[in-house]
Amino acid sequence: MKTLGLTRMIKVEVVVRANDVDVVRELLRTAGVSGWTSLTGVSGFGHHGNHEGRLLFNERSGLVMVIAVLPEQHGEPVIAGLRQMFGDRPGVMFISETWVSRPEYFTRQPPQ
Amino acid sequence: MKTLGLTRMIKVEVVVRANDVDVVRELLRTAGVSGWTSLTGVSGFGHHGNHEGRLLFNERSGLVMVIAVLPEQHGEPVIAGLRQMFGDRPGVMFISETWVSRPEYFTRQPPQ
Amino acid sequence: MKTLGLTRMIKVEVVVRANDVDVVRELLRTAGVSGWTSLTGVSGFGHHGNHEGRLLFNERSGLVMVIAVLPEQHGEPVIAGLRQMFGDRPGVMFISETWVSRPEYFTRQPPQ
Repeated sequence: MKTLGLTRMIKVEVVVRANDVDVVRELLRTAGVSGWTSLTGVSGFGHHGNHEGRLLFNERSGLVMVIAVLPEQHGEPVIAGLRQMFGDRPGVMFISETWVSRPEYFTRQPPQ
Repeated sequence: MKTLGLTRMIKVEVVVRANDVDVVRELLRTAGVSGWTSLTGVSGFGHHGNHEGRLLFNERSGLVMVIAVLPEQHGEPVIAGLRQMFGDRPGVMFISETWVSRPEYFTRQPPQ
Repeated sequence: MKTLGLTRMIKVEVVVRANDVDVVRELLRTAGVSGWTSLTGVSGFGHHGNHEGRLLFNERSGLVMVIAVLPEQHGEPVIAGLRQMFGDRPGVMFISETWVSRPEYFTRQPPQ
């Protein structure tokens, strides 16, 4: 990817109930993440055994996927915050390597 | 990613016609995949020359993207099953590396 | 991934205003990309400071994510074209490594 003039980042994809999107956004904002993309029309099934005896998602619709891209060195508070959030809210997150052409757009801003 | 306390998995993204989603889900379930996320509002174009002389997708809407995350060592039956499914149904799949914080949620369950 | 019989490609994910999707598609077509998948129901916030003094996206809905998969060696004109497009249109792109089972479906076609 370096041959394409791109800069390595991490992409955090989070699937949560629509009601919990504000929690995710606040967590991202607090961690200084400068932007995100949200997808609606998301449903999920299972993904992880049970949560307090229930399936976390049971072909439930009304979910949202929030996608944020940030430098890996800024990932720790985001991932720690999401992990804590999943202690009492259903959801999943996937973290992947991705590459961008304008890294300054994804660079941590001072928390507001 | 290891520095973030994450565990490597593979993410399988499959785009198929809405009518074929049940085939994908059954295939995942049989392979012991413990959950998935579905996105609607998906359309596609081409992506792969022709299928029996027709474009596989021709700006067709009504497609669904199914996303499943699983350990790479459990990927073979899923990928083999999807490849076989694509023998007579239009669609595409992409497999990527991804990382998760709670690997037990994505670990193969005994087939039901 | 090679153990799964897969071939490495790059996945280009582009988030733009619905009005700009045709520009992206034309750019992909000109670069010989043989197909793409589009997701609607997309909204975005910020993601990159300001664009001519305005937030690029301000929790704006009506965005589209276009996903294209192509060989890395064909990525340069696509990425250069998108970078140029972002000079006067809001949007983000992420480029990731992905793997496919039928590489011929994603191979560059002669531009039309």
